[in-house]
Amino acid sequence: MTRERLAEMVQRGLVTPTGLISHGRGEAYDYLMGERSTDAALEAERAAAAYLLNAENPVLCVNGNAAALDPEGLIGLARRVPAKMEVNLFHRTPERMEGLISYLESKGAEHVLGRDPDSRIAGLEHDRALCTSEGIYSSDVILVPIEDGDRAEALVAMGKAVISIDLNPLSRTSKAATVPICDEMSRALENISRFVEEMRGDRETILKTLDGFSNSENRRRTVECICDSLRAGLDGGDD
Amino acid sequence: MTRERLAEMVQRGLVTPTGLISHGRGEAYDYLMGERSTDAALEAERAAAAYLLNAENPVLCVNGNAAALDPEGLIGLARRVPAKMEVNLFHRTPERMEGLISYLESKGAEHVLGRDPDSRIAGLEHDRALCTSEGIYSSDVILVPIEDGDRAEALVAMGKAVISIDLNPLSRTSKAATVPICDEMSRALENISRFVEEMRGDRETILKTLDGFSNSENRRRTVECICDSLRAGLDGGDD
Repeated sequence: MTRERLAEMVQRGLVTPTGLISHGRGEAYDYLMGERSTDAALEAERAAAAYLLNAENPVLCVNGNAAALDPEGLIGLARRVPAKMEVNLFHRTPERMEGLISYLESKGAEHVLGRDPDSRIAGLEHDRALCTSEGIYSSDVILVPIEDGDRAEALVAMGKAVISIDLNPLSRTSKAATVPICDEMSRALENISRFVEEMRGDRETILKTLDGFSNSENRRRTVECICDSLRAGLDGGDD
Repeated sequence: MTRERLAEMVQRGLVTPTGLISHGRGEAYDYLMGERSTDAALEAERAAAAYLLNAENPVLCVNGNAAALDPEGLIGLARRVPAKMEVNLFHRTPERMEGLISYLESKGAEHVLGRDPDSRIAGLEHDRALCTSEGIYSSDVILVPIEDGDRAEALVAMGKAVISIDLNPLSRTSKAATVPICDEMSRALENISRFVEEMRGDRETILKTLDGFSNSENRRRTVECICDSLRAGLDGGDD
């Protein structure tokens, strides 16, 4: 179902063909983790909720794949935190930008940023750097689902707390992020939303959760989970 | 480059959008194995060469992704063994069939089977079962790059020796195959071609290589290689 949805979004020009290949890479990791949120993922999702609740200007960054996969999940989390949404594309054209923002609006999103960029992400070239001063540029905490490594690193270098959703625990994005969530995007958004509700207003828990999180330790647990799953899969009769 | 080639083949209707997602899954495994032929892959490729040399009617089965990724490699191996080539599609239409066979012919292939199927693979439904009696149906050894699990299992059930090329060591295809090659297709074809030259005419080595190969032991080595690579990648500074 997800695959057909993505294929349809390619025909509409909102997802690129290379976006489909990228989605396939994610599927492989998801499969290796048993297509469920691992304990390590849940820990990262809890830390993500704490960062978002503690932020002054939290922003959810949205690209073509993310919008195609789960617009409702993105809009729901943005409303719950609350956080701004900004569309930011690797392959940017005015048509894709307008198409994606309109698509999110058709799903109920209000005030989606990105149409009129007036700032740049430092360290990136060409159109990939474009962003708005109201959103990404002035954000202190930014959630980037399915982001490329260059942009994730550039956002960290700007001093932002970056929460990534990327199923590969060894990707440059996962390594660079403050909080690398290795989980399928829809599950991740749902879990973060739940933790946001649980922790809202509990400043002590929020700060403790922030302080206790370690990128490298979390990714190490994810890798061990993948290895356990691979070994168990060898002996199983089926995939 | 490969990604752009595949994207172009989608526009020409020869590769399906879900074929791109499937390619992405393969990329993830390839990345986890260090984008090189592992020792386990080389062992399987050697066994594949032995099976092909020992066959009465060896056939190379070609689908859209395989033809798009490396037509020259497929044609080269078919010529070297020699083996027949037959196009066999999961999403079969007369247009895609004709398009793919013409594409292979434009790359120098002669006598590509599949246009006029007159037999069926037992245990498969609808058009997916269609094949030729000259090729797939009467083959004793069949190489299936990037095959789906149903078809791989059906071919094994027909008593054929099935050589798969599938980067996922836990897939139903890899589990069902007589020789599961977990390697990127172009590298696999090149290695098999080399081993074919090395073993040609050496009946003793061919039979010893056949006898000595174990599917489960080979896949176990592949999984250990992936785990080692994941752990090493955690500590590396880059992906």
